[in-house]
Formats: sequence, structure tokens, C-alpha cells
Amino acid sequence: MATDIEIAQQAKMQPIEDIAAKLDITPDQMERYGDYIAKIDYSKVETEANKGKLVLVTAITPTPAGEGKTTTSIGLADGLTKIGKKAAVAIREPSLGPVFGVKGGAAGGGYAQVVPMENINLHFTGDIHAITAANNLIAAMMDASIHNGNPTNLDPRRVEWRRAIDMNDRQLRNMVNGIGNRADGVPREDGFDITAASEVMAVLCLAEGVDDLKERIGRIILGYTYENEPVTVSEIKAEGAVASLLRDALKPNLVQTLEGTPVFVHGGPFANIAHGTNTTIATKMSMSNADYTITEAGFGADLGAEKYMDIVSRFADFEPDAVVVVATIRALKMHGGKELDELKDEDVDAVRAGLPNLVRHIENMQDTFGMNVVVAINTFPTDTEAEVEALREEVADRGVNVVQATHFSDGGAGATDLAEEVVRLCDEPSTIKYAYDLEDSLFDKVEKIVKNVYRGDGVEFSTKARRKLQQYEDLGYGNMPVCVAKTQMSFTDDAKRKGAPEGFEIAIDDASISAGAGFIVVQSGSIMKMPGLGKTPAATKIDVANDGTISGLF
Amino acid sequence: MATDIEIAQQAKMQPIEDIAAKLDITPDQMERYGDYIAKIDYSKVETEANKGKLVLVTAITPTPAGEGKTTTSIGLADGLTKIGKKAAVAIREPSLGPVFGVKGGAAGGGYAQVVPMENINLHFTGDIHAITAANNLIAAMMDASIHNGNPTNLDPRRVEWRRAIDMNDRQLRNMVNGIGNRADGVPREDGFDITAASEVMAVLCLAEGVDDLKERIGRIILGYTYENEPVTVSEIKAEGAVASLLRDALKPNLVQTLEGTPVFVHGGPFANIAHGTNTTIATKMSMSNADYTITEAGFGADLGAEKYMDIVSRFADFEPDAVVVVATIRALKMHGGKELDELKDEDVDAVRAGLPNLVRHIENMQDTFGMNVVVAINTFPTDTEAEVEALREEVADRGVNVVQATHFSDGGAGATDLAEEVVRLCDEPSTIKYAYDLEDSLFDKVEKIVKNVYRGDGVEFSTKARRKLQQYEDLGYGNMPVCVAKTQMSFTDDAKRKGAPEGFEIAIDDASISAGAGFIVVQSGSIMKMPGLGKTPAATKIDVANDGTISGLF
Repeated sequence: MATDIEIAQQAKMQPIEDIAAKLDITPDQMERYGDYIAKIDYSKVETEANKGKLVLVTAITPTPAGEGKTTTSIGLADGLTKIGKKAAVAIREPSLGPVFGVKGGAAGGGYAQVVPMENINLHFTGDIHAITAANNLIAAMMDASIHNGNPTNLDPRRVEWRRAIDMNDRQLRNMVNGIGNRADGVPREDGFDITAASEVMAVLCLAEGVDDLKERIGRIILGYTYENEPVTVSEIKAEGAVASLLRDALKPNLVQTLEGTPVFVHGGPFANIAHGTNTTIATKMSMSNADYTITEAGFGADLGAEKYMDIVSRFADFEPDAVVVVATIRALKMHGGKELDELKDEDVDAVRAGLPNLVRHIENMQDTFGMNVVVAINTFPTDTEAEVEALREEVADRGVNVVQATHFSDGGAGATDLAEEVVRLCDEPSTIKYAYDLEDSLFDKVEKIVKNVYRGDGVEFSTKARRKLQQYEDLGYGNMPVCVAKTQMSFTDDAKRKGAPEGFEIAIDDASISAGAGFIVVQSGSIMKMPGLGKTPAATKIDVANDGTISGLF
Repeated sequence: MATDIEIAQQAKMQPIEDIAAKLDITPDQMERYGDYIAKIDYSKVETEANKGKLVLVTAITPTPAGEGKTTTSIGLADGLTKIGKKAAVAIREPSLGPVFGVKGGAAGGGYAQVVPMENINLHFTGDIHAITAANNLIAAMMDASIHNGNPTNLDPRRVEWRRAIDMNDRQLRNMVNGIGNRADGVPREDGFDITAASEVMAVLCLAEGVDDLKERIGRIILGYTYENEPVTVSEIKAEGAVASLLRDALKPNLVQTLEGTPVFVHGGPFANIAHGTNTTIATKMSMSNADYTITEAGFGADLGAEKYMDIVSRFADFEPDAVVVVATIRALKMHGGKELDELKDEDVDAVRAGLPNLVRHIENMQDTFGMNVVVAINTFPTDTEAEVEALREEVADRGVNVVQATHFSDGGAGATDLAEEVVRLCDEPSTIKYAYDLEDSLFDKVEKIVKNVYRGDGVEFSTKARRKLQQYEDLGYGNMPVCVAKTQMSFTDDAKRKGAPEGFEIAIDDASISAGAGFIVVQSGSIMKMPGLGKTPAATKIDVANDGTISGLF
């Protein structure tokens, strides 16, 4: 089989006007970036929620064997198109960090891809660069304010706003900057996060328009004064210039699948320290103009989907009509105790041993959040019928169907069964429920997520976390939802505990506030907000020929 | 009179296809970025030098009174269009640093502007973001290589490659990064320069195509081993990925003046530590498709125009057919000893006292470089006929005409006289000469620039500079041209010495090599490669309304 980039480069793309026309979007409502990419002006296109159906694609707890959420989202939309439905995908933009690090591209794979994949994986329409610049303009204005007399009285030791770069660069994690002479700033500890982890990204993903964006940016907390009072972006008068930098980034980007299904690629990843989904604006635009919108949430359903329910659906006026839980037989075997090199041969017992992980995610989606659920098996050639049958049996009594999908090798034609089941589910009634109430204290919210979603016994707050959460309560932020940053590799806080562990507590070590985005982040263990490059970065294999053809992305 | 941004926003722009058609560029040769910006594919458009005429706009030594080189370049092109010529402008892209710092926009002013000015001044087509990413990918791969076993044996104390950001941010000038735990990199001194100062910018400006770009990037020197050997980008295998990031940035951007004259805005500023001009590719594309191409060089003619002759014209196969030296009566009075608040009233003596500065630049252009010269007076309402007449008399015996231009308030109609004189000059024969030969030693090259251009007595090399220049000679780089980084405010190395000082030496304190760009930088005094923000940055006045209208750029 050809590589992803070879398949993508052989694709015969349709002009972006033709893709837009499938959603009744006209050329005067868009700005073209070349022939196959456009930004859609939300002020000229209907952007109302709940006209079309919304399908959330999530997954079992990730393993090194892989699940294929993005690929399944794309394949499902192509499958819906194949059976005559007006479908669109609404997914997140790739970050340059993983592209040059280990993973290569992030626009699907095989015959379920979004194109033009080189552009999407490299600069695309510049949204992430705009977010980087916005994040760093805030930082530069903040440090210039400290340097030039410090009118806000911001304590340089209590600055919480970090700089951002869209790169895997561990060298920038921790630094002392502002050193040199008196003219060279104020010496303090600082560091860079990868741009997708910036609160500006979360703000952009949740903003409903320029005014809302500007207000949210103004509310961002930079740090604290010597008297322990928060200092916000509005105090350094940066929100207007920052919003100007983000004006075009707020407009959803339209591209296409290999089969010509419209795809909105907008907003950034990071479903641990942020909610990590497609933007509210793009999702609503898609729901207004397509009958079925397929979106995805990051990591396993305990992290990404939990945040999609408790944060995104609560803030925006839309909620999923159906949830697809993606699993692979290979990954279930890993949850059943097998290693990565032991997955080739049939092993029904290992699949059975791994199923409790899947079942717990299904229970959460159905019971905790009130969703209609289907399990999609992202098929590998090594899967056997006996293994799939074991899975079917296990979830049958919950009324959940299991559908095998072969979109990776067959495109939309391999996902028509999944599409039919999704259509059926979207017509079933459902009402969203939440893991906690906004009126609960911040402490109770964390406790409820642990008990109702992770299925642990309770929470152990560190003194630091307890002190900070109490401070946020005292400052009046107690009604915000909570965003748990935790390893995505386990229901517990120990990445090595696969399957569906019981009898554990979650240790919460730290907390921070994203006052612009509107949630409190609680952190279990150390969260990597700046990845590093390995010994042989993927970048060493990426190249461009004199005619402009790029190779080495995958 | 309306502000620049008000004039720009009231402009009725022509579709970019119509602008391209004026240069016989067809829609299949371009990628549109919205309706009024396009990237032109140099592989599909003739990009040969010396078909059309090339006009270089330069200026007297800058003063706080201002000269208006960019405004004059735009007005002249509009003037040429007005008298029936097929003209285009080829200028540099603005940097976000000054936009948010003090100066606001950088796309002309008054009725001599390039539009859409908000887009050009903010992210434009993302070229500068791409250069930032390329610069920092090199840095991340270099530090990852040091971290992961250091196979190139690069001495962390001798790293010369710095990171880049397109922002005025003094806090990032000097830092110690790589601190924390063992997994967080290797502690070393580092810092950020503004992106326009990155060697990647210089490389992009000089590259003839993707292969040339990749070779130049591979030759960039990162630093030195413990054994004093240079380590290049090709040794960390970064050039392919870096060139992939720059693939689209290498394509010239086409926009328009307020009067619909085509403008190529491509490449970055910094005419001190780099050559600081429009890209070679864009200039050649313009010369292939327009009869008159107007380009500009940064700062005064001793810095920008010297580099245009000795570096750009030598590397590329084009040379100016005429040189416009821009002056203002106000600035001449400052060279004559007046202060900024003393320029309103007629003062022929002050003009006469300042004229030696202009005359020295004219002599350099005519005698040292062999150019045909016209003086353009960028007219202010306070100029008097007696003041202009003093100027005319002074340069008449050198065969140089003086033309008053009022493009700032009148657009192209205010620059038709200048256009006529430029047309006349372009038909006069001229042959470029250089300030030095490539075979001269690096020391002799600097000496010749000082004597033949600045008109000083000689050079005083510091021990450090002498040692480095000798090292570059020993490493085989002795045949490269020399790029002098020096204050632009004086012919001397003392910013306060205006006019045409005599009897001085230039102190050269340091040197560095841009092996990818292909020149040696020698540095006089401390050069600011990372500006800072003042007490009230321009950014505090920039805003965007809910309908997307941006205000506060100027």
C-alpha cells in the first residue's frame, strides 16, 4: 500500500468552491487560500447550533497499538456521504511539534485523509502562528510593563503567563531571561509551552465572535501582585492588538477528504490541559450547513469526551446526538495484558481481558452523560471474527452495536455500515447529563469526575492544589467547570495501569486558572506542556524537491 | 487629512487577478490569499533579470525628520503608471515588531500606500512566520542533537545560532535555558533575535529556487566544536525540513498600490546585519514582467545602497539602471545643525549646511558605483522655493536634477515629474562598479568601504574582530563580500555626527559569518538585533471591531 503522503498527493482534489457549494456556502462568503483551502466568514454564513446532527468520535484508553479516531471521523463522514447524507467533518488543526517530532502528519491516514495534507500539516492558513504571536505579544507587553516601571505591580516571581512556540523544543521549557544589562529586561524565571497548550488556543476554540474573543483575552490572568491580587491582560491594554492578530484565525478553514466531503479544520489539540476540540464557531457553522457533523475529542473518552460534555457542550448551545467509541482489537489485547509485539495472533482471551476498559467508557457515555453509543472497530488485517464476536457479546446487553469499519484501506465504502448505525442513533432521543453541577465546589467537581467517570474511590489534593483551589473559590471563580490534566494512558493517574482498574485514588498535585477560557485546570502528576525532539526527529526525513513536492510527511 | 489606515480602508481595491493581468500573469500562475493578495509561482512565471529597467530608491542619512523612501517608491511607480509606463514596485515585508512597537504600519503613507494595509502589516501570507519557524526548527534540532549525545561535538559555549521571534521583546535578548532536570536540555547561554535579523531571512532573500535555498540552509554555521571546527545545519540533517517550511514563503506576494499599480511585497528588512532588500526572486519576476521595477534599500545610501551594489547586484544578475536619492528639506536642515523643533521656518543657510550629506551620497552613487542619479524631494508643506533652489544649485554641476514630488498628498499625480526624469535616466548608459573586489582580503574590503563610501580615513579592528576575520580567511571564506553593521544615523560610527564628517576612523568591534547567505558581517558598536517595547507600545492603541475592522495602525 502507498504511504499516506503518496495517497494524498495522487488525490484529484475538487476546487474549494465546489466543496463549499456542498454546504450551500458561496464564493462571496469565503476567502480562498490557493485553490483547495478557504476561510469561511462566520459573519456571512449561518452559524447556529442544533440544525444538523452532531456525532462525537471518541475512543478507548489509548495504547501504543493506536485507535484511529481522526481516521474514523473522516471515514465515517465519507461513509455518510456514500449513503446519500449531507455530511461534514469538524476537527482540529495539526501542530508543527508532532509533525517534526515523531508522529508526522495529523490529517488522517490511508484512504481516510484530509487534503491538501502537506499544507494542513505545515503552515495551513497560519492560525497557529497567529496564536503564537498573540500569546507572545501578551508576554512582551507584560514584560515591557514590568520593565518600564511596573504600573500593575505584578510580582516577577509570580508571573504565570508563559511564552509559546509551535515546536517540540525542550531547551525552552525552563529559563532565566531578562538578564544582561539594565536595558535588557527584568531577570526572572520563565519558559515556553507548545502553542497548542496556550490559553489563547482554548480562548479561540470557545469564542463566539470578535467581541467575545476580546473580552476573554482581557480576562486572562497574567500572574499576581505583591499583594496577591490577580493581574489581567486588560490591565496592560493588550486585548485589542491581540484580538487583531486573531481576527482571521477565528474564521473556520474549509478543506476536503480524499472523497470530497467538506472538512472544517479549526482549533487546536491538547485535551488534557485544555478542552482540546474543534472550535465552537466551526462546529456551529458545520451544524448549520450539514445534516451530519462529525467531530472528535482527544485521547480516551474519560479525558476528551468528558470535557466535551462538561465544558464544551455546557458553554456552547450544542450537544452530541450520538457518540462513536473507537476501538481496535489490537488495543483491546494490550488492555488485556499483551505487549506491542504480541498482537499479531488471534487471542480471544486477551480481547476479553481488555474489554472492561471499553465497557467502562460505554457506561460513562450512556449513564453519566446520557448519550447514544456505537462501538466502531477500526479494522486491522489481523483481526479475527472470533475476537470481534467476543466484543459483540460483551456489549450486547447494553444495547450497543459493534460495527467493523475498513475506511483506512477502503475509504467511505468501508464505513457505510457505521454510517447507517450513526444515522439510526441520531434519530433516537437523548438528553445530555453532566458529571457534576456548576454549583458544586471546585473540590466536589473533581471528586465527581473521579467517581463518575474514572470510577476511582476519591481524590487526594496536595496542600498546594488545595490552597490554589480555595484561592480560586475566594476570588469568585468557584462556578467554573474543571479541566483535569492527567495521563491519558489510564483511568488512574498511573500510565502503566491499563484496562479498568478499581480501588484507586487520584492525586491532584497542582491547579491553575484559565480565566479567559473559563475553566480551572487541576493537574495530576507532571504534565508536559513542551515536548522534546528525539535522537532522530521526523524532521530529518522530511524534504522538498525543486518542483515543490514535499516528502517524508506521514 | 485622513489617517493612513482610513485612506487605506476607503480604497476601492481591484481584484488581484486584474492586478496580475497588468503584468501578464494569469490566474493559473498564482495562489490567491483572499481577493486582494496572491502568491505568484516563480516556476510558472518568467523570472529573468534585465528585461525591464530597475530603479533603486535610496536616501540621505536618516534623521528623526524622516525621508519617506517607501512612500517615494510607491509614488514613483504610480507616477510611471500615470505617464503610461508598465511599472511595478518590489519592496520588503513589514515586521510585527515595529507594528506593535512604535512605528505602526510599514506599507507607505498618505496617498502613496500599498493595500490591503492591515493584512500586509499583520500576518500577510505568513512568510515571516514561516521564517521564524524555520529558524527555530534549526535551533530545536541543534539543541536536541546536543541533548541526545551531541554527535557533532558542538560546544554549547560556542553556539552562535540564536532563536527568533517576530516581536519587540527585550526580555528574550539574553537568557540561560536548558535548565531544570536532566530531561530538560543542556544549560547554556542563548537568546532571541527579531525574525527579520535571522540569517534565514537573508537566505530566503537571495535564494534562486528550492535547491539553492536548501544548499544555503545546509551551509549555515551553527557554532564550533571543542576543536574549533564549524558545525553546519547539514550535519544535523535539518535543511530538508527547513526548506519544506519555506516552500511557499519563497513565492513572491503580489498586492497593489492605492492606484492599482502592482506591488511585490517580499523579503525582510534589516539593512545593517543583512543586505535588507526585496528578494532576488521577486525583483527578477517584476523585471521580467514590468518595464520599470522600483525597489528600495534600507537606511541611507551608505548602508542600504552600498549593500545593494556590493552584495545583491553581485550575487544576482541584475543592477539598477537609475538611482533615486530621497531627501527632505527638513532632514537637510537637521544635517545642517537644526533640531527637530526648529524645522518649520525657512532657513536656506541650514539647508546649505546640510547639503554635504546629500552630495556625499550622490558622489558615492555616481563615482564609486557608476550609477545615474536623480534627487527626489519628498515635499512637505513647509518647504520654500528658496530652500529647494539652494539644493538645485549645489548638485547642478554633477549633472543631477532635483525633482519635487508630492505623492504623499497627491498620489501618482504628484510624482509624474519624477517619473519622467527616471525614464530619461534609465535610457542613459551606466555600468555598475563596486567599492571593493571579491579577491580583496576581508580586511581590505572593510577598509575600502570606509574609504570609498563613508569617506573616512581608515579602520580600527578590535583584537576579537581581527581574530575572527582571520579565522574566516583560514576557513576559506575570504572571498565573500562584507556586510557592515553600523549605526545608520551617520557616515561615522557615532550616531550623533550628522552631515558629512571628515577625518574619522571606523571601529570594528566584532564579526560573524552568514555562510548560508554568503557574506561576512562586520560590526561597529553594538547592534540591536532584538528591539524592546516602550512605556506605551503602539499595540495599546490597536483594536478590532466585532465586524473585523482594525483601527490604530498607521
